[in-house]
Amino acid sequence: MSENFADRLIGAIEKKGSPICVGIDPIIASMPDAVFRGGREKADGGDPQAAIDAIFEFTTRVLKIVAPHVPCVKFQSAYFEQYHWEGVEAYYNLIQEAAELGLMVIGDVKRGDIGSTAAAYAAGHLAEPEMSASDEMATPDAITVNPMLGLDTLEPFVKTAGEFGKGLFVLVRTSNAGSAELQDVKLADGRTWSEMLAEKLATVAEGLVGGRGWSSLGAVVGATQTHTMISLRQRLPKSIFLLPGYGTQGATAEMTRHAFRDGLGALVSASRSILYAHKDAKIAAKYGTDWERCVEGAVIEMKQDLAGVLAS
Amino acid sequence: MSENFADRLIGAIEKKGSPICVGIDPIIASMPDAVFRGGREKADGGDPQAAIDAIFEFTTRVLKIVAPHVPCVKFQSAYFEQYHWEGVEAYYNLIQEAAELGLMVIGDVKRGDIGSTAAAYAAGHLAEPEMSASDEMATPDAITVNPMLGLDTLEPFVKTAGEFGKGLFVLVRTSNAGSAELQDVKLADGRTWSEMLAEKLATVAEGLVGGRGWSSLGAVVGATQTHTMISLRQRLPKSIFLLPGYGTQGATAEMTRHAFRDGLGALVSASRSILYAHKDAKIAAKYGTDWERCVEGAVIEMKQDLAGVLAS
Repeated sequence: MSENFADRLIGAIEKKGSPICVGIDPIIASMPDAVFRGGREKADGGDPQAAIDAIFEFTTRVLKIVAPHVPCVKFQSAYFEQYHWEGVEAYYNLIQEAAELGLMVIGDVKRGDIGSTAAAYAAGHLAEPEMSASDEMATPDAITVNPMLGLDTLEPFVKTAGEFGKGLFVLVRTSNAGSAELQDVKLADGRTWSEMLAEKLATVAEGLVGGRGWSSLGAVVGATQTHTMISLRQRLPKSIFLLPGYGTQGATAEMTRHAFRDGLGALVSASRSILYAHKDAKIAAKYGTDWERCVEGAVIEMKQDLAGVLAS
Repeated sequence: MSENFADRLIGAIEKKGSPICVGIDPIIASMPDAVFRGGREKADGGDPQAAIDAIFEFTTRVLKIVAPHVPCVKFQSAYFEQYHWEGVEAYYNLIQEAAELGLMVIGDVKRGDIGSTAAAYAAGHLAEPEMSASDEMATPDAITVNPMLGLDTLEPFVKTAGEFGKGLFVLVRTSNAGSAELQDVKLADGRTWSEMLAEKLATVAEGLVGGRGWSSLGAVVGATQTHTMISLRQRLPKSIFLLPGYGTQGATAEMTRHAFRDGLGALVSASRSILYAHKDAKIAAKYGTDWERCVEGAVIEMKQDLAGVLAS
């Protein structure tokens, strides 16, 4: 049996001394010029191979910079799927690179479907790749999952996660402005739709609790959603919260406070504020024009920022 | 400007004389032995290339059989993603094959994410592939989309669909047994969650209405959900309904009646009952042991079955 995902993740957070997840959102237009070997124009102008080469160069350098500081990275699948199967090949190869650097990896794929279709998604995205034609790939340690189709549709994901020591982060309350109208809507019994979902998920989460008391079934809760953070934490006491929204989307360290319990149980995710820190005037003034120093500086500042909240 | 998707689809339904969408769910264990060139054992036993070869052979033969009878096929992405990037390459190449046979194609990908991430999904799955390294691919005419993250997250998909004459089928009420607990839950105002979603979508659908009066923003409504079909049709008067669940999942032609308006506006989807018709004793008794004759027989019977309802 593989080791429980939640146990591995809690161990990695303690080892690195920070609950940070760096989001890998490779956007050609935001990348530093230095990663475009053949010139930025080719990648911008519709040459998919030039774009994928730049993504590969940029991401491998980011992974090496952040690996000593953070336990986890999250790959946003959409930015790879944009380049069709060649992008998907880069996605899996880069996950392998991250794994070799000792990073845990979340695949942000937000999949969800019924019955045997959900089982096929779980096989492709979570199972160990016995079906791969290449050695240069790994599947993520965990994936994000969309639960809208019903709790029954999570079962194949839960089964595969349990079998391979993998994890799930189920969307419960997302970070975007428009999420309220569907997720915060009040039910006849007074709860919000997300609160109802959280209560149902808590039962499923019980089945994946590890030795450290945390479940491998986690929840995605936007760090921006402070009005409902305490309520969702109470309803999902054993789920690790993945909190997107820090930095560019406006959430602060203080806003993540109630997601933690005894200093554990949450991963704060930041993407653009780390990856493209060279575009941030405040960071650039402190760390100079070298984009890689800016990435490292942004991670170190985020680590200190969160440490302040966790210590108080 | 490309022609409006809904206009193209309504035209194709009229031309073929049936509102059928054949679901391409390639499952190795269910396929006839005849498509395994190197023997079934290789594909079953963990050789991804043998599995993909069999999927390719099976699907191209199915596409040729159904093309004269139906307007549309729906590719279930999960069964391709299961084989990582090589499966994704087969997905796009087979969509190209279907397009060359004059079939319209829905990519059943159920994607959904926020902001620039949703835009990247739309670029990969709906936009014309200027970014492709290969000529042997097409993107689908429409994709399925998961709206749980909020109506704002649909905007990039709507924009790309409008730009390229493509369509969207938004999940509103799915066909699986467990869907009721999240989608039929009653709100404080008495509507179900799905009814509330349908009303919000109707406004978005207005922006994509074509010359025939139907919108390129359609809805996925399980054919099994007869208790809410009339209510959802009233709330989404211009959306084409994609109705999964006919056949193996238990829905009958009669159960789809209220999704239609004046004989149009719905696509009835069947996957396993067509693809694996050779396993159906009743079909095999009538059409013999040739799996391809069984596929054609099952399509013709479904066509007659639906015609009976549409005529009465």
